[in-house]
Amino acid sequence: MQRYFAKQRKDDIFILEKEDYHHIKTVMRFKDGEKVQVVLENTPYLCCIEDVQKEVKIRLLSQIEKTEEIGPEIVLLLPLLKEQKMDFVLQKATELGVHKIVPVMTERSIIKLKEEKVDKKIERWTKICKEASEQSYRTDIPEITEIMTYKSMPNWEGLKIVCSTTEKAKTIKSSLQKVTNCARIVIAVGPEGGLSEKEESYLTGIGFEAVTLGNRIMRVETVPIFILSILNYERMR
Amino acid sequence: MQRYFAKQRKDDIFILEKEDYHHIKTVMRFKDGEKVQVVLENTPYLCCIEDVQKEVKIRLLSQIEKTEEIGPEIVLLLPLLKEQKMDFVLQKATELGVHKIVPVMTERSIIKLKEEKVDKKIERWTKICKEASEQSYRTDIPEITEIMTYKSMPNWEGLKIVCSTTEKAKTIKSSLQKVTNCARIVIAVGPEGGLSEKEESYLTGIGFEAVTLGNRIMRVETVPIFILSILNYERMR
Repeated sequence: MQRYFAKQRKDDIFILEKEDYHHIKTVMRFKDGEKVQVVLENTPYLCCIEDVQKEVKIRLLSQIEKTEEIGPEIVLLLPLLKEQKMDFVLQKATELGVHKIVPVMTERSIIKLKEEKVDKKIERWTKICKEASEQSYRTDIPEITEIMTYKSMPNWEGLKIVCSTTEKAKTIKSSLQKVTNCARIVIAVGPEGGLSEKEESYLTGIGFEAVTLGNRIMRVETVPIFILSILNYERMR
Repeated sequence: MQRYFAKQRKDDIFILEKEDYHHIKTVMRFKDGEKVQVVLENTPYLCCIEDVQKEVKIRLLSQIEKTEEIGPEIVLLLPLLKEQKMDFVLQKATELGVHKIVPVMTERSIIKLKEEKVDKKIERWTKICKEASEQSYRTDIPEITEIMTYKSMPNWEGLKIVCSTTEKAKTIKSSLQKVTNCARIVIAVGPEGGLSEKEESYLTGIGFEAVTLGNRIMRVETVPIFILSILNYERMR
């Protein structure tokens, strides 16, 4: 069943984004009486579509039980990548449960964003995450922060790991398995060309553990997907 | 360093595919004396480029030590997906170490291939895997078999799992962790819309274990990447 995130609720009617109404009428071509799910403030509801020919009303029918597990907050420090790769990582990371994405300007990031284009970019990235959240039935949308550098980012509490190209012995598995319970996991991955030595040593200096992902050589956009997959796996019974 | 798969070797000169010579001259614009890696019969070699203005010669300098680990053969039974998704899975599955990909015609596969186009398709898919193998420094290229149905495929030995939409209790983790050593892992994933009940019960009837991947709802193309990531993780120390 199609799921939408609502902006607000007035009595039994949910108010969606303008483009969601377009999606309902023109893309999905829903008819009166058809059902959709709507999420407001992390709570999913079963709703029914009314008056599709005029203004489209989304009426609450019942609340839906949440099935999401409670786990650590997953924060991904993601270097600016080329547009297609960036979009890909945002979509897949959302499917795989990321909570917060921090776009990072790194030394070797090929992409340099002009100041005036930053807001538009973040808006676009947020939209990709919203759509992926709808598709994967999440009740929250990952937060995309402003673009930071490693030096300008807050001092995260929790388990912090950086995917290293030089560390050969200490695997990400040894790092994850040693921690049985933590409130937050922060993951730093490299851009194309990797993190510089300076960046890596800055990160380890502020408490990040440098780990290897093993012998496989993966493309830059595959790494976050790999890590988020194993984070899900670690929490599986 | 750029890596190519060679077709054959004549004394100290490796013979590549025609399009690889084009890649060397026109895409990479290598100059005489520059180094590349070449793989022949699963063995990587360091080579040097000569005579780039005329016929391009790839001369052997030394053999390179292999770093690949020995593990189970990973077979992915992949329903025919839309072109872009198919290409994506082939590329990422290669990066993540798949050995054999069996394209499967399932009940709910949207894609129906015309008989006369099958050879061209398999050639195209193999090319994607070859390029991904080069990029990820593999010494082998995943084999793409002919298109099969579940009934026409061979009787695989090894651990066989099918990603089920109905199984809720038995996780893929419980299935993988029970097996400490096996020569082959065969993975069946669904197409968009999932496997039919009939297909799933046919597979469990021939020894596949139906497992759940947990509560996350992933797109069809994300599932193989998720599974291959955790197979790597399981084998990590």
